[in-house]
Amino acid sequence: MMTLLVQIKKASLIHALQHVSRAVSVNSPTSVLAGIYLEVKQDELVLMASDASLTIKVALREAAHALRIHRAGRIVVPARYMNEIIRKLSADVITIDMDEPLILRITAADSHVRLCGVGPELFPPMDHREAHPPIKFRINNGVLKASIAQVAASASLSDMRPVLTGVSFDYSQQSLKLMASDGIRLASRTIWTGTNLGPAARIVIPARNLHELSKLLKNDHDETEIAVMNNRVRFTTHELQVESALLDGAFPSLSHVIPRDYLSELFIEKTLLLRAVECVSVFAGDRIIKLEATEGTLALSSRTAEIGDVQDRVPLRTMKGEAFRISVNGRFLIDIIRGVDSERVRLRFTGKTSPLVILPEDEASPMLFLITPIRTHDS
Amino acid sequence: MMTLLVQIKKASLIHALQHVSRAVSVNSPTSVLAGIYLEVKQDELVLMASDASLTIKVALREAAHALRIHRAGRIVVPARYMNEIIRKLSADVITIDMDEPLILRITAADSHVRLCGVGPELFPPMDHREAHPPIKFRINNGVLKASIAQVAASASLSDMRPVLTGVSFDYSQQSLKLMASDGIRLASRTIWTGTNLGPAARIVIPARNLHELSKLLKNDHDETEIAVMNNRVRFTTHELQVESALLDGAFPSLSHVIPRDYLSELFIEKTLLLRAVECVSVFAGDRIIKLEATEGTLALSSRTAEIGDVQDRVPLRTMKGEAFRISVNGRFLIDIIRGVDSERVRLRFTGKTSPLVILPEDEASPMLFLITPIRTHDS
Repeated sequence: MMTLLVQIKKASLIHALQHVSRAVSVNSPTSVLAGIYLEVKQDELVLMASDASLTIKVALREAAHALRIHRAGRIVVPARYMNEIIRKLSADVITIDMDEPLILRITAADSHVRLCGVGPELFPPMDHREAHPPIKFRINNGVLKASIAQVAASASLSDMRPVLTGVSFDYSQQSLKLMASDGIRLASRTIWTGTNLGPAARIVIPARNLHELSKLLKNDHDETEIAVMNNRVRFTTHELQVESALLDGAFPSLSHVIPRDYLSELFIEKTLLLRAVECVSVFAGDRIIKLEATEGTLALSSRTAEIGDVQDRVPLRTMKGEAFRISVNGRFLIDIIRGVDSERVRLRFTGKTSPLVILPEDEASPMLFLITPIRTHDS
Repeated sequence: MMTLLVQIKKASLIHALQHVSRAVSVNSPTSVLAGIYLEVKQDELVLMASDASLTIKVALREAAHALRIHRAGRIVVPARYMNEIIRKLSADVITIDMDEPLILRITAADSHVRLCGVGPELFPPMDHREAHPPIKFRINNGVLKASIAQVAASASLSDMRPVLTGVSFDYSQQSLKLMASDGIRLASRTIWTGTNLGPAARIVIPARNLHELSKLLKNDHDETEIAVMNNRVRFTTHELQVESALLDGAFPSLSHVIPRDYLSELFIEKTLLLRAVECVSVFAGDRIIKLEATEGTLALSSRTAEIGDVQDRVPLRTMKGEAFRISVNGRFLIDIIRGVDSERVRLRFTGKTSPLVILPEDEASPMLFLITPIRTHDS
């Protein structure tokens, strides 16, 4: 009886399982989404997991991974047990077969495993009808990862307005603009794609899915192809495909909240500013820290009732305009400063009740951050 | 006004805080036990934390840490804030003073912190009346750490019989015997102290406190002094003192449960056995794994209903006596095998309903483990 499906190196299988397992649904442990979809095709082994919003697929090609494919077959097995048992096998080569219906048999040296699965037809497929989507372009992985890190941190964590938990991708002509805002802070970055993307349009991708994608993009010199489909977006790089659902609802037009003018502008060493904001944030009751810029110095402070207070100061490189005092959420400011990729940070004060603008040193940078001040009784 | 208490290197202070913070009470966040006791004495800075059962004290000597002590003083400050803020300061030297009652002032370069504390008189002191305890001996740190790792894992995790959550230290003449048992497994190891400890006696130390002690013993070539007091035990090594409450209640006499005879004895490579037990334990429903020894081979297996099953086998080095079959808790067996410090493990089968004995290869070893079999419907 020809039952053998495939022989595969343990290291290749573990690597693929680690990747797809990031999409395994943790909220529905009994559903098919708590499983890993496994399919042996003519010349590749496909592993896939999905939590309905995010789908991750790894296709191991026969030649690249020295697979020995004997027969096609497919099954969905429980992710937790599959991951644990493969790790515990001692042999370097693992044999996978299916000689009973819905049972995966795994053999490695003296270890014999029977793992009960469920039918693959219940597993949501990646949509092959949209294999030729209308919008398709490529971005360098390093740029994509940095942009996600900078922008996605400003997306909302609350489900009050679901569309704000996403990052807006605005494309038109050859530019792609990422933007996220939770109402208090805003981050945006423009990427030049080098491909004409046609008429202006916008999609909104859950920030959580972008964070997962970011962790999977290993080689910064590679490129990722982004394909925008009807209600989904697909990222493809080498053997890896990551597909995300899009968020419905109108993403607010935020260009009008970005101040054009400013009252003061100052430049500070990024590492000094970050360290001082982290320091005063330790004592920030309700996360409020106070910034006070005077000639030559930015003074930072915070207090927590009955615990204590802290004051710090950072020298300014330069300051144009008037002295000012403003209170902001310290935690949010830390995220923003971390995202600025230049040695010095440019801060623009635009008024007591309008956002503080944070920019890299280079005026031509495609990156911008805003943070709305908090009104306090003494400011 | 002379208010300065002490100047200290940031690295020394962080190191001491990390040590004592392991004893900070997590269950009473508002009590004085959620704090760190800080005392500047004539020639040392003392830090201390306690959760009532465990107290950890670090005494930084002026000369060894290049302290600059200006004045004595003491206070208890909230551990969480103290730890966070010290880490975030940028300067290498930190100045600590108290110019307001119950407020610790911390200064480092441009950072100024005021941290509200409480009175030190509420903090439970280490007992100085017992500075000259009746029983006192020294053990090599490497031996002490290994012994704790081997024995304390067998202590009970349940509070049903509190005394079983501890490790019994039996001393008499020049030997110290550590023993722990949760009723299913038992571990014991004898240490030769080289000091006459006087008439036989026994104390029982909470396993949790021994685990914490073990993490703090860094240098395996050093020695720790153990002082047994009325209702406590104190471990001292260099600047570190760890004091543990003792457990009340009679620790059961367990020598009669250790089988003297056996029906079969086999030797197996430790790494192979550990790997196979870990492998079959993945599928062990109720943690039950089955062992079956026949000439030349130990077969291991387990199953979880509706998930699957796994079988593995390990070659035996030698086997004396009859073939046997027994079921045990796989998780417990893993802990035991990890504790055996020899290349080969000796397994002794003593009957279907009496404990499996696990020993190192060397018959003269001072180490012994037992695990009680589980009765299953097919064994």
